[in-house]
Amino acid sequence: MSLDRPGPTTPPERLSVLLAEDMAAVNALIRVRMASEHAPRIPEVTAHLIEAGGKRLRPMLTLASARLFGVRGDNPVRLAATVEFIHTATLLHDDVVDESDRRRGRPTANLLWDNKSSVLVGDYLFARSFQLMVETGSLRVLDILADAAATIAEGEVLQLTVARDLGTGEETYLKVVRGKTAALFAAACEAGGVVAGAAAQEQEALAAYGDALGVAFQIVDDYLDYAGVAAVTGKNVGDDFRERKLTLPVIKAVAGADGDERAFWERTIGAGDQQPGDLETACAILERRGALAATRAEALAWAGRARAALAGLPQGGEVRGMLADLAGFVVERVA
Amino acid sequence: MSLDRPGPTTPPERLSVLLAEDMAAVNALIRVRMASEHAPRIPEVTAHLIEAGGKRLRPMLTLASARLFGVRGDNPVRLAATVEFIHTATLLHDDVVDESDRRRGRPTANLLWDNKSSVLVGDYLFARSFQLMVETGSLRVLDILADAAATIAEGEVLQLTVARDLGTGEETYLKVVRGKTAALFAAACEAGGVVAGAAAQEQEALAAYGDALGVAFQIVDDYLDYAGVAAVTGKNVGDDFRERKLTLPVIKAVAGADGDERAFWERTIGAGDQQPGDLETACAILERRGALAATRAEALAWAGRARAALAGLPQGGEVRGMLADLAGFVVERVA
Repeated sequence: MSLDRPGPTTPPERLSVLLAEDMAAVNALIRVRMASEHAPRIPEVTAHLIEAGGKRLRPMLTLASARLFGVRGDNPVRLAATVEFIHTATLLHDDVVDESDRRRGRPTANLLWDNKSSVLVGDYLFARSFQLMVETGSLRVLDILADAAATIAEGEVLQLTVARDLGTGEETYLKVVRGKTAALFAAACEAGGVVAGAAAQEQEALAAYGDALGVAFQIVDDYLDYAGVAAVTGKNVGDDFRERKLTLPVIKAVAGADGDERAFWERTIGAGDQQPGDLETACAILERRGALAATRAEALAWAGRARAALAGLPQGGEVRGMLADLAGFVVERVA
Repeated sequence: MSLDRPGPTTPPERLSVLLAEDMAAVNALIRVRMASEHAPRIPEVTAHLIEAGGKRLRPMLTLASARLFGVRGDNPVRLAATVEFIHTATLLHDDVVDESDRRRGRPTANLLWDNKSSVLVGDYLFARSFQLMVETGSLRVLDILADAAATIAEGEVLQLTVARDLGTGEETYLKVVRGKTAALFAAACEAGGVVAGAAAQEQEALAAYGDALGVAFQIVDDYLDYAGVAAVTGKNVGDDFRERKLTLPVIKAVAGADGDERAFWERTIGAGDQQPGDLETACAILERRGALAATRAEALAWAGRARAALAGLPQGGEVRGMLADLAGFVVERVA
């Protein structure tokens, strides 16, 4: 992507240039804190996740939120590392599978590592993140992140409970999305503001921004898992269908289904009886029922809410503008 | 056991009578906090663990440690519930298995629940425990429990790493035991003292008591997994042998092994090739090499250290005496 683009042109790229020095400190702290004197296997397991170097979106949100108020230094860096540890821990725990998953041929990241290592190393990262938060000395930050941790776990359990259940509605979907994605985005922003001395309503605005950004981000992800089937997105499409997840496109399609379509969803998602060609049929139904267009519209609306939440916050030099652009960026893939 | 004993005669029974009112508050708090509005599966999964009502040793340690200083009330109750949640979460995460474990015929508690539920509900309980700690408003308590959480996870990972490795020594065993058992005992005691206003050296004494008590407790457990094979203990003996864990009796026996014995351990523990009668042979070797007697002596020494650590603490009415008796009680099964 960067090959044919000379400078940092996407919003995450521009943010990462602006925050480069602090992000270097975050990365250094992550490396130090994921080490374990007693259990050398730990960095082996985490390194491939942490060094793989995704976009580091969550820690950048924390640093940017503090920077809005002109604040840098140890506490934003600690919290940015905290947020990345929590994210990595949830990825590791998400890798845990049951035999039934394997039987369904689901490709899992933990083929490299067994279930037990994924769980225990995830727990270690949670504990390390917890230590980092305590070092900030801010009970308010601990409160925010403890609540986020509970919301994340609840969202994940809820997702498990409603999987394969065609009765799942949009309200439940939103709860799941808030848990699995938006809660950490919101906490990352809010905590960054708190250690930077943001006022109560500014903290709320940051949480609202992160929440809406996270919801938009996840809806786009769920949209592309179907919409990307036809296109070439490089994304591993069709996973949600194979895993029989009730994501927004399917929920909308089920709500508008005729008899034949209903039978199709009951067979493929409800009963898990999937045949070759079913994914393509599913995509065709989603298209026909307008479910993809409606999903896309919701993602755009949430991105709009994220931008609107920024209104009451200081400019922070270019930071607020970059955060607004970031909201546009997460929905760019569906625009 | 209690059928032929009219009153509370064991130290845990006497402690639970003394702390009955506070323990009722702890149990009520646990029930309220394990509920989840959004994910009703959570209490289903936790109830059978939490209601099963073991001895509730860990929360009693917290309450007793505060009571030594004449303190009762919300904070000791919150921390006692915290400690029980952490304990339950680690049990759930310990239930996660890999296919290879199932193939070895290991009976697991999570046959009732799948791996994924065990992980996610465990995470939920960790998050809930974290919220409870934050409510105490004590950064020192958060510090203690964050460190304990990291030590627990490190100990579990270390145990995984050294499983089946006959090169494991007693020092490594002790690190594992500190992680899997003693860290939470120590934190339970220390945190109880902190919220009760204990002085720094009293906090240290409580941590030292909990640590030694936990180590003694775990050594007894590991001893009985072999020594109980001959006796009728009601305990599911032989699990450690089948799971090829390097526990203290085996470590001691391997250290003193002759050529034939070394080959036996390499085949059964190292390579995992176990035949009918091997467990009995293992027990016979442990007996012959004095490994069981030496393990028993270590458990008694740690119980002695626990009692000694109480010296600098106030009497707290009968509480200190009960804690001393408790140290005797955990090794009573091997006395």
